[in-house]
Order: sequence, then C-alpha cells, then structure tokens
Amino acid sequence: MQSKMLWQTLRYLRSLFAFKKYAILAALILILLVLLLIQKDDSVVECDTNIRSLYDIPPEVQEQLKKQWLSEQNQLNPQKVLPDEPPNQDANPPPVAPLECLINDDYPVQCLKTTDKDEIVYMPFSFIEKYFEVYGAMKHYDGYDRFEFSHSYGKVINELPTPYTYHGMLMSFDTYNVEVRDRVKCVSGIEGVPLSSQWGKHGYFYGIQICQYGLSHYCKNLVQKLPQETVYEDADTIQPVWKQSNKQCITQYVDDPLIRNKVVKFTTPDSIPLGSGLTLHIGNTVERVLSFDIRFVGNGSISVMVDTNDKAKQYTIHYITNNLLLDFDHRSNIFYGIGATQSWRHIARDLVTDLRKGIGLSSTKKKKVKTSITKVTCLIVRGSGFIDNITVSTSQHMSQFQAASDWIVKNQDPESGGWKNDIERVLPGYDPIPPGWLSAMGQGQALSLLSRAYYVYKNESYLKTLALGLLPFTLPSNKGGVQAMFMGKYVWYEEYPTSPSSFVLNGFIYSLIGLYDFKSLLEDQFGMGSENLPADTVTQFERLGVNLPKVYSQASKLFQDGMTSLKAMLPLYDGGTRTFYDLRHFILKIQPKIARWDYHVTHLDQLALMSSISDDPIFQQVFQRWKGYTVGKPSQHN
Amino acid sequence: MQSKMLWQTLRYLRSLFAFKKYAILAALILILLVLLLIQKDDSVVECDTNIRSLYDIPPEVQEQLKKQWLSEQNQLNPQKVLPDEPPNQDANPPPVAPLECLINDDYPVQCLKTTDKDEIVYMPFSFIEKYFEVYGAMKHYDGYDRFEFSHSYGKVINELPTPYTYHGMLMSFDTYNVEVRDRVKCVSGIEGVPLSSQWGKHGYFYGIQICQYGLSHYCKNLVQKLPQETVYEDADTIQPVWKQSNKQCITQYVDDPLIRNKVVKFTTPDSIPLGSGLTLHIGNTVERVLSFDIRFVGNGSISVMVDTNDKAKQYTIHYITNNLLLDFDHRSNIFYGIGATQSWRHIARDLVTDLRKGIGLSSTKKKKVKTSITKVTCLIVRGSGFIDNITVSTSQHMSQFQAASDWIVKNQDPESGGWKNDIERVLPGYDPIPPGWLSAMGQGQALSLLSRAYYVYKNESYLKTLALGLLPFTLPSNKGGVQAMFMGKYVWYEEYPTSPSSFVLNGFIYSLIGLYDFKSLLEDQFGMGSENLPADTVTQFERLGVNLPKVYSQASKLFQDGMTSLKAMLPLYDGGTRTFYDLRHFILKIQPKIARWDYHVTHLDQLALMSSISDDPIFQQVFQRWKGYTVGKPSQHN
Repeated sequence: MQSKMLWQTLRYLRSLFAFKKYAILAALILILLVLLLIQKDDSVVECDTNIRSLYDIPPEVQEQLKKQWLSEQNQLNPQKVLPDEPPNQDANPPPVAPLECLINDDYPVQCLKTTDKDEIVYMPFSFIEKYFEVYGAMKHYDGYDRFEFSHSYGKVINELPTPYTYHGMLMSFDTYNVEVRDRVKCVSGIEGVPLSSQWGKHGYFYGIQICQYGLSHYCKNLVQKLPQETVYEDADTIQPVWKQSNKQCITQYVDDPLIRNKVVKFTTPDSIPLGSGLTLHIGNTVERVLSFDIRFVGNGSISVMVDTNDKAKQYTIHYITNNLLLDFDHRSNIFYGIGATQSWRHIARDLVTDLRKGIGLSSTKKKKVKTSITKVTCLIVRGSGFIDNITVSTSQHMSQFQAASDWIVKNQDPESGGWKNDIERVLPGYDPIPPGWLSAMGQGQALSLLSRAYYVYKNESYLKTLALGLLPFTLPSNKGGVQAMFMGKYVWYEEYPTSPSSFVLNGFIYSLIGLYDFKSLLEDQFGMGSENLPADTVTQFERLGVNLPKVYSQASKLFQDGMTSLKAMLPLYDGGTRTFYDLRHFILKIQPKIARWDYHVTHLDQLALMSSISDDPIFQQVFQRWKGYTVGKPSQHN
Repeated sequence: MQSKMLWQTLRYLRSLFAFKKYAILAALILILLVLLLIQKDDSVVECDTNIRSLYDIPPEVQEQLKKQWLSEQNQLNPQKVLPDEPPNQDANPPPVAPLECLINDDYPVQCLKTTDKDEIVYMPFSFIEKYFEVYGAMKHYDGYDRFEFSHSYGKVINELPTPYTYHGMLMSFDTYNVEVRDRVKCVSGIEGVPLSSQWGKHGYFYGIQICQYGLSHYCKNLVQKLPQETVYEDADTIQPVWKQSNKQCITQYVDDPLIRNKVVKFTTPDSIPLGSGLTLHIGNTVERVLSFDIRFVGNGSISVMVDTNDKAKQYTIHYITNNLLLDFDHRSNIFYGIGATQSWRHIARDLVTDLRKGIGLSSTKKKKVKTSITKVTCLIVRGSGFIDNITVSTSQHMSQFQAASDWIVKNQDPESGGWKNDIERVLPGYDPIPPGWLSAMGQGQALSLLSRAYYVYKNESYLKTLALGLLPFTLPSNKGGVQAMFMGKYVWYEEYPTSPSSFVLNGFIYSLIGLYDFKSLLEDQFGMGSENLPADTVTQFERLGVNLPKVYSQASKLFQDGMTSLKAMLPLYDGGTRTFYDLRHFILKIQPKIARWDYHVTHLDQLALMSSISDDPIFQQVFQRWKGYTVGKPSQHN
C-alpha cells in the first residue's frame, strides 16, 4: 500500500517537472520526509507524558481503532464468545465496574455491577457455589460455551418407574459398581465376594455390601446386552496346545466322571516355581473377565499374565490353593488365595478389579488405581488337577450374583437368622455398637437377593434361608433383633441397632423392599395369599422345616406394619428444602442430619419403588416434592 | 508541532540546494505530499473494510491509546468506581463477555464471565435473589457504594438477653407497633383497644392483638425515655381561655366532688353543629397524643383539628358520645364513637393513628396512608359535661397498656375462663374453626399482660382474671380448651384448636411464657412456692374465690408439662436450613410449612427468653443453630 502510494507520488512529480534529475531530487526529499515523520512518532512515544498529543491521529481513525480494541477486549476468545449458534445473548456486554458485596453484614465478596443505568449486580459463582452448596461447570457443546448450574449432584430419576417385581430391577442397582469402591478391599478368592475395609482396614465380610454386590450384578445382567466371550478350552471342541515349562509338565484330555464331561487333566512337578508349569496362550485384548472350572489334587495355582497401560508393565495374578486374602510383591506379582479347591468349582474373576486391588494394596495414597489391562496374555497352571471351560468374557454377572447368594446362605447365623456384622460401628452421638450386630437393611437386602436367587435357581436352601431371615425383624434391637418402636406407636426396622434408636430412613425402606420381595416370591411361586393354596407345596417345604403359610403370614405382617410406619413417619424426614438421613435430631435432641444429595436421591429411588407397590398417594406426592428439592424448589412458607 | 517540523524541513532542504527556486519547489512538493497523506487517512476511514490499515499508527501509540480507552470504558462513572475510601477492590475489572448459564438443565440465565484465563463466572443477583430467596440492596456510605446481601430479612438478636422477669421486657415487644398494622382497622373510641380486620373486614376484637397492643406499650414505656408533654388545662394552675361559638357556650372552673379536683364545666346549646362549641387553642407542632379526663351530661363531642402534610389539608377528628366505630366523610371529617361517657373517664388518643385509620377507611388501595400531622391546632367541646387535664404528649403508653388490661378483664368468658375469638378461622388443610374458639396464645399473652398489670396496679380483678385464665389449659381443644396431645405423650397448648392438632410452635411458646409470668407473679408477690407462705394472703384472696396455692400449683404444673414437651419436640421444628411454623406436615402428611423469616426470628426471640428461664442447654444450642440459618449456615450432612 505504502510503496504503491510512493510510486504514484513519484509518477506525479515526474509529470510535473518532466525531467529525471528533479525526479531523483524529489524522491530524495520524499525519503527524508518519511524518515522525519517516523522520527516524529517516536518522539511522541518517548515523551509519553501528555496523552493529548496522541490525538494528533485523526478522530475518525481514533474512533475506528477504539471500536476495534474495545470489541477485541470483549472477545479475547472470539470462538467462545461468537458461537456457531449463539444463544439469546448480547455479544457486547455492558461495561462493568467492581463492586463490594457485604455478605450478611459479615464479610465482603468482590462482585461486579454494570455501569449503565440498570446497575445490574453480578456475584461470582465461586461465592454462590460455596455459600449455597450448589454446583457448576463450564461445558462446550452445540458450538458454544455454557455454564451448567446444578442445585444438587445427585442424578434424579425423572419419571416413576414401571411396576416393580421381586425378580426385576431393583432401583438403580444396575449402576452400582460395588467391587470398584475404595471401601472394598478386594473380592475374596475363596468366597468370590467383596470384603469391606470401610470400618476396619484388615477387611471383613459385610453382608450389606455382599448383597449389593450380588444385586448389582443381577441387575446389570437384566439390562446389559449378552456378554461377549471367547472360549480357549472346553476339552470337547477346543483342545488348545499347552506349553510346558519342562517335560514333566503334562496335560491330557480325559472324561471326568463327576461332571460327565471332557476336561483337561494337568500335572506339574511340585518343585517348579510359581508362574511356571503349563502355559495356555490367551492373547485377548478385548475381554477382561476370566472364568474356568477347576479341581485340584493337592496344592497348585493358576497364574494369569496381563499386559497393562502402566508404563507397558506386565503383571501376573496368581490364584493359589491357600487361605491368603490378597498380597502384592510391590513389583509385578499379585496373589489371591482360592482355598484348597479339591472339588469342582467354577471360578470367575474380574481381572481388572483383581489387578487394581492388588496394586492398590501397596499404595499409601488415597488415589484410585487406574491401571488398565491392555491384553490378557496367558494362563499358567501348576500342581495337579483338572481344569475346563477356560473362558475370557466381558462379564460374568450371574456367577458373581450366585457367589453372593451362596455366601449369604452359608453365613446366616442359624440361631438369630441374621447376618452378623463382625465389626464395631460408631455413630456420632451414640455408644459404639459392638461387633456382632444385625442390620435391618442387611436382612432386607438378603431377602431381596435370595428372592431373586430362588426365582432363578429354585434352590431350596435359598428358601430356607429366606424364612429364617425374618426372625430378626420380630425382635427388638436390644434383644439381638432389628426392631425399634417410634413413640410407642410405630414399628421400625433399624439399619443400625443404636440405643436409643436412630431411625435411618433409607435402611428402613430397604428392609421393607426385602420383605416385599420375599412376600411376593411366596405369592408368585407358591400361591400364598390366594384362596387355592396347593397343599403339596406346603408339605414339600415342611420337610425342610419351613412352614410356608406361617412364614408368609409373618412376612406380610412385618411388611404391612412397616408400611404403616413409613407412611406416618415419612414427613418427619422432610426438611422443607432437604431430607434427613435419620431422626437422631429428635431422639438425641441434636442438630438434624441432612441427607447428602446421593442419599436424597436414594430416598427418591426408594419412593419411586414404593409408589409402584403401594396405592397410597403419599409416595408420589413426597417423591414429587423431594424431587423439587434437588432443583431448588422448597416447600411453602406459612 | 507539525508547522515547526515543516519549517525545519524547509530549512534543511534550503541548506541542501542552497537556492530559493528549489526551495519553493520543495515546499510545493511538501504541500502536495501532506495533501496526499491526509487523503490517504480519509480513504481508510471511508472504506473501513480492512482494519489492518489502521496499524499504520505506530504500535507504541496504539498501545498508549488502547490503554487509555479501555480504562475510560471501565470508568464511565468514575465517581462510583473510584470511591473516596475505596474498599479492597481492583479499580480495573477484568474484561467480561456474556455467558449463558443453564439452570438445573431447565432454563437459561444470562451471566458474565471474565475473558482472562481465570474465566470467572458471574451470575446476576436478580437470579440469585429469586432462586435462593435472599435479599440485597445497594447502599452508599463511608464514601462508596456497597451491595448488602442478606440471607434473611429478619432482624436477629445477636446475644441472648439478660435474665427475664414477668414484669420486664417481653422479647422485642417494644418494637411492635400493633395499631399501625394494616390488619388493625382502628383503635376503638369506646374501648381504647385495637380492632382487627385480618379475618373479617368489619372489624372485631381479637384478644391476642389487644394483648400485644397492651404489652407493646408496656415495653415501650420500659425502654423509651419519659414522654414529653404539654398540659393545656388542669383547672388548677392552667386555666386557658375558651373561645365561644356563641354566647350560650359557657365554661366554668368548678370543684368536682367525685375526683376531688378542680375541673372545667362546659355547656353548649344542643343545636350547634359538630365542630362548634367551645374551642381551646392548642397549636402544638411537636407532640401527637391527646389525652384528657371527661364526663358528659347527655350527648356531646370533642373535636380536634389538625394540620397535615396532605397538600396542607386540615382534618377534624370528632370523638362523639355514640356507638359508632369509625367513619370518614371522604373530605376532612373523621368520626370515632366514644360511648355515652357519663362517668369520669381518661381518654388517650394517638391522633396520627386515628387520622390515618380514618383516611384509610375510604381507601380501596392497599397502600398505607402516610399522612402526617404537622400541627395539633385546637380542641372543641360540644354538649354539657366536665373536662380536665387536657394534654398533648409524645406518648401515653401506660394509658394504652391499662386500656388493654381492662378490656382483657372485662371480656373474659366467665365460664371457660377464655377470651373467645368471635371470628371463623380457616387454616389450609383443616376444617374451618367456627367463631368462639380459644387460643393458647391468647390465653398466654393475657397472662403476660395481666401479670404485668397486677405488678403495676395491684388490682385484685387482674389476679382473679389470671386465675380463671388457666382453665382452658386444662381442657382439650375439642372440649372448649386449648390442650392437645402429641402422640399420646406430650401435652401441648394450641394456638388454633384445629382437629387434628396443628402444633403451632410460636403460639405454644407464648402460652408457656404466659404461664411462667403468672407463676412468677405468684412467687414474687405472694411468696408461693416458698416454705413460708403468708397465711393472710391466701385468706385474702379466698374472699375473691381465688385459691392461691391451688392456682399456683396448677400454673406450675401446666408450665412444667409444657416445658417438657417443648424440649422434646423442638427438634421437630428444625428443618436443617429453616424452621417449621407448625407440625401440620406430620399430622396431615402434607408439605412442611416453612416459617417465614419473621416467624423464624420470633422463634429465636422466644428461644432466647427460654434460655434465660431454663437451665436446659437445648435452648441455647438450638438458638445458636437457628441463628445460623438466618445467615445461611445449615445443619450438617450425614
């Protein structure tokens, strides 16, 4: 532009003077002039004392520049501010000035106000977030930035669910990942169920957690698509080659008389080290759940080598015929005891969970282990025994459900009918509850689990366990049961047998769901509650010591009494803006325990279920009101 | 600057070429160049398509200008932004851009974010105010603007008060202006107490309101400085001249045998119109409460002329010996009936209240009448009778207190011992309560009022009324009393005798305060509760049908039983973030009734009082927690 202008000037001058010499002279003059002009500008910047001197720039240019800069200033990131499909917003915000806000006559917060006549006051979200305990995050989608403000962090069911059945989905248990939780130490190799470390670092079996583990896998199995699986050995059609550590390691395909099937018989010397023996190549980069049937003769182990994303490190998980819970050599070997395993047994292991719990064992950090398996490389058997159906799949939910159900059957206290929690429980404001206590929630969830287990497997031991599981509901919590009484009028089933009672709401409703499940199972499977009760069914279970009509009548009454209490007492958990976790504020005359939003959402899930099994409109009404609390709609004022 | 530079250039060119001709030529060239340059600038502004061309201005200049303009932009109103004593705030707010906030995945709100790397999100207070029901106002003091954010609108007592006594201050009743309230129709000329129009436009006496009127004036009298007063006539030392409407209007200073005092005897013809007669010049521009002693012989009136700020309008308030409640001629005359008044009576009228209630009578608008009296001009008597002690003062609290106390004595139902509310009361969710109901709050406040009245005046009729006032506390609300029972366990005194019970908290505590006051009066004045009971006192009141020991034992038990209930049930009113007005949510299984902030503050005032009369730490604890709710500090989560 400048050079073009210069050239035009020169041509103009030449035409004026019409001879070369003057043209050269003029060019020289011009160059000098330009130099002088540049010098002039510099001098202004140097002195820099009087901003008026800048106005030597013509006003129109100034105006133009000002407009541009102000616009730029407001659009430092134009892609964000000028979205592809901008929402209904003014691209030029009004000018703002700082403003001090005085909060409750106590402390200041830096705010903004617009300097136009509207004087709109803006408060920083960082204050709002902390003060009101709300949530917010910047999100980018549909071509522009948006700030998503949430009153609560709980995900709320939007509609009341379809009718509930005792063998169907339980609330949102399909979204639970029990074994992944930090408070789960690991999944026991012997029992196939999780151990809790919530109230004791050493790890202990916690009935409620085991029920939730089983129920979550049951529900996942209901809603997830069929698992993808790769069978590496079934002895009948798939007979892979095993790599031997030495020549004394032998495999053989034989018929097993016990399971009437072809299986792999293996033998390795006792002296070879862990991780040696007979190796089956797997090389699976897709699935992560290993399962097989196994029977050892003497001691032995199954080791699984996996490649991970942990700096391309290879780990080996050893399942050994001992009683070790879990160990990690702080390098690359993780050990799980699977017990003697001298009769046929189906083992299903989520290798990712086993790996992470193993690595996490050495970690003193609270940080979750996030190592992923990139490949299940191979499986190595050691010792003598039989193995079959070596499979790697995306899930083994029903195996995990069954493991939980079987643990529940095996671990019921035959005297009390309860699942004793062998850990001290400390609730603030109450005396510690010594180990051995029962929880109505545990009882209820066991009923929910085993009702489903009976529905699927029709195993009589499940029914026997269910029947005995009612017993603690009939005894007060200070007599080894789970029953409490509110104001001498309303019966309650206590999540924690505190003295005095604590009336935890969610645990109580879980117990009612369990009673409902068992009651429904008895109606559905044995015609209980109907006129035409098949006599042979009753006789059949008398053999097991289960008096079906009596058990049914007991379950029904426990359920109905509980429902009466729930309907009457539900308003006591209504804080008008939040819900209460329990009634300790009334019992101990202390401050109310506001339910965290995740518990509030549990309350909502439970109310949705209750509204499906009860005709009383209170459940729908309370559901709608409490759902409103999650989006900041409080109850009315007087 | 530019001309100087031009000159230098010319001199420089001349020195180069050293002869005039070329210098003139060079000057010509220069002029042409300057013209061209100007043209160039214009062309840029006109085309306005490529903003890059503006950068011909040197970068340093640009930087300087940019800084200046941005600074200007942010200081459009420098006086507001740069206060005399600015708080800890940055005078240059970061540049902002509009931002859409999506609230609970439901609706958008226009917000701002800073466009610097911090990306601070600001939400408009207009949203926060509505969403969270908080309060805010711009205030200017200490030389700068501030935005005052308040979680609640209730004024909270900061410290627990000094020990409470039955004859001292009652909560913050000194701040109540009962008669000023919109729901007060007027102060009756006959009874000297307010009439309510809250639940009935016609106006009706409402015991609770009358007690509050009396108690508020009692408390004002305790804390306010002595009233300022001007006596215009006392017949003894001040004998003003009365202006006659005609010669038949006669005044005379005579001795009254009944009150043994000099008084004014007045006579005017029956035929003269209202507002004529004998005029006493007042001309008081300071005080507003008129009082006098009066006794009419036949009909008559006292008219008071006042100047107001209502477009300099003069009004006349006529107090007439009839049974009219209140009337207004829609021009300048307001009428109050004072009844026959044929025996000596002390009348005290707050002229501002009488004026405003009169003008407000014609108003269909909800807007409060704000007319002020600028001068009490004169007083005109008409009819025949006696008048004395004509005074205008700043207040007549004890007159008003006594009027309320006397109304309470006179209007106690002799059968039930209650103050019947002759108005239907409708509480949402309950059947309407038909007229004639009793309120524990009314009973309690009458006890508080009369305990103070007895303390001051030692009038036996107060004590007799007090004793009988206990009776409704002993009867269930469905049997004409005020007693309810919570869960068959806790006795409660009901503000409203709903069926089922509603358990209104503030009314209950008022009833306990009343019981405490009466109990304390009996202890303090008659030695009740102590070992050495003066026998003659007991005998003295037996004459009146008051069995003092029995009454004391009854009051004590009613109080203690109520305190037991209050301590047990207080947590049921705790919503974790707010308090509840009543327990209708538990009783009717509906949504909780969150107490408005003014009721919340009443709860706090009541707790402060309770903590002063009870050793139980619960009152201080709950006070502190509930006080926290007013500044947004909720109870803990689980």
